Amino acid sequence: MRGLATHPAARGLADDCAVLDLGSESLVLTHDTLVEGIHFLPGQDPADVAWKLVATNLSDLAAKGAEPLGVLLGYQLGTDDPRFVAGLDEVLSHYGVSLLGGDTVGAAGPQVLGLTALGRATHRPVPSRAGSRHGDRIWITGPVGAALLGLEALQAGDGESTAYRRPQALLAQGWALAPFVTAMMDVSDGLLLDASRMALASCVTFAIEQASVPIATPEARRDDALRWGDDYQLLFTLPGNHESPVPANCIGIVHERGPAPLLLDGKPPSGKLGYEH
Amino acid sequence: MRGLATHPAARGLADDCAVLDLGSESLVLTHDTLVEGIHFLPGQDPADVAWKLVATNLSDLAAKGAEPLGVLLGYQLGTDDPRFVAGLDEVLSHYGVSLLGGDTVGAAGPQVLGLTALGRATHRPVPSRAGSRHGDRIWITGPVGAALLGLEALQAGDGESTAYRRPQALLAQGWALAPFVTAMMDVSDGLLLDASRMALASCVTFAIEQASVPIATPEARRDDALRWGDDYQLLFTLPGNHESPVPANCIGIVHERGPAPLLLDGKPPSGKLGYEH
Repeated sequence: MRGLATHPAARGLADDCAVLDLGSESLVLTHDTLVEGIHFLPGQDPADVAWKLVATNLSDLAAKGAEPLGVLLGYQLGTDDPRFVAGLDEVLSHYGVSLLGGDTVGAAGPQVLGLTALGRATHRPVPSRAGSRHGDRIWITGPVGAALLGLEALQAGDGESTAYRRPQALLAQGWALAPFVTAMMDVSDGLLLDASRMALASCVTFAIEQASVPIATPEARRDDALRWGDDYQLLFTLPGNHESPVPANCIGIVHERGPAPLLLDGKPPSGKLGYEH
Repeated sequence: MRGLATHPAARGLADDCAVLDLGSESLVLTHDTLVEGIHFLPGQDPADVAWKLVATNLSDLAAKGAEPLGVLLGYQLGTDDPRFVAGLDEVLSHYGVSLLGGDTVGAAGPQVLGLTALGRATHRPVPSRAGSRHGDRIWITGPVGAALLGLEALQAGDGESTAYRRPQALLAQGWALAPFVTAMMDVSDGLLLDASRMALASCVTFAIEQASVPIATPEARRDDALRWGDDYQLLFTLPGNHESPVPANCIGIVHERGPAPLLLDGKPPSGKLGYEH
């Protein structure tokens, strides 16, 4: 968050979620904005947009091992509001989450949709990006690249696009993992970029073996899959001798901090690592 | 919130704030969106916009007697982001509130800014709009119409515009009032409209005496002052024999529900009561 992140009060903006202790509970809070033409396609089904808006915020809670308490919506009226409401209904029911409040505005220009999700931590300390240690192993809950294929199918008007349109928030996996992980985050902007961020936050170097990363694309597009976002798998580290309590793939190991935060098959990857905001 | 308000999960949208019990605490949550050209003037000082965005949400918390815990910001980049940050810093420092998180997006079109404010109730049950009873007296914490004069001064480029640019959230008043009020809300959309909403929510009729309403405008503009918004005074009802624990003016009494929710000097007011979203 340019400019704002330098503000002493704005430290929370560097991470996806804020954690706030309140009485006997720890609250986990996240806010994301989707903009038409940037985060979703103009003309995309508003029901899918509603799904994505909610699911991506819940995914942030999943990465904190948090149980959702509800969401607040900042809704800019669009071309088919009833269809948005239908999708909102579907995603809220699917995750058993309440719409606690929000507001509606009319405005010209691309549709801007904001959502705040609120959860309670199921385990404390709440996992962050900053706990990976030398000797940990790096894990991911499932393949990357499915959303990339889904977007291409949607743009082509042909083929399976669910992974792009209706991402899943891995809440149950996050709850199961929270007591054991040394660090955790959801992969929203590309595996290489997000892994690099986690390594930087933890002051370590991540060494990832390309071939061990599960991908949803053909092998020829492995590199795209590792740099594409929107899959919302959980990326986490566990002490070296721990197995994952949920199905997951070990994709590398954590070293002491070297010259580069990320090594791919032993070398710093070149080019764009993912989707930079 | 058209469409959404009919959703069973969307009941919270009918009120300004959501209240959520969590452990030993009650959380109070509100989300408001400001749109350039609708809620603030194009070209208005971004520092003032930041102030208003935060203060209006904190005002919602004030009306619930809630103590702010922090805010989350959905920020669409504008023409002078450092100036926005300066105003944000100022308002957060003024109220001692933390920026917990949020995100930044770039988009064409008018600037859309969303803010979620989170607080903890200082008194339970948390005051709502729906508790006014026959025999209560109706109170307001201060004059209406100052923001109207401020807007006019700002548009004219001459005169005192602080009341419009930098509204105050009456947090201390809200905390002091919460244990005693039968209903409370902040006046954001015009006194007559908001009073009518409170009466409807409480299933009663409010009888307001025009002359007893404190106004910041000349007497000739009393009618404007009663219908204009943006002043963020607290409107509340107390049992008939109670005096207000904070400086406030008694402006009327509560009757059993009659044919109209609101009477002004004994008659239902005609015309537009305030700012309808």
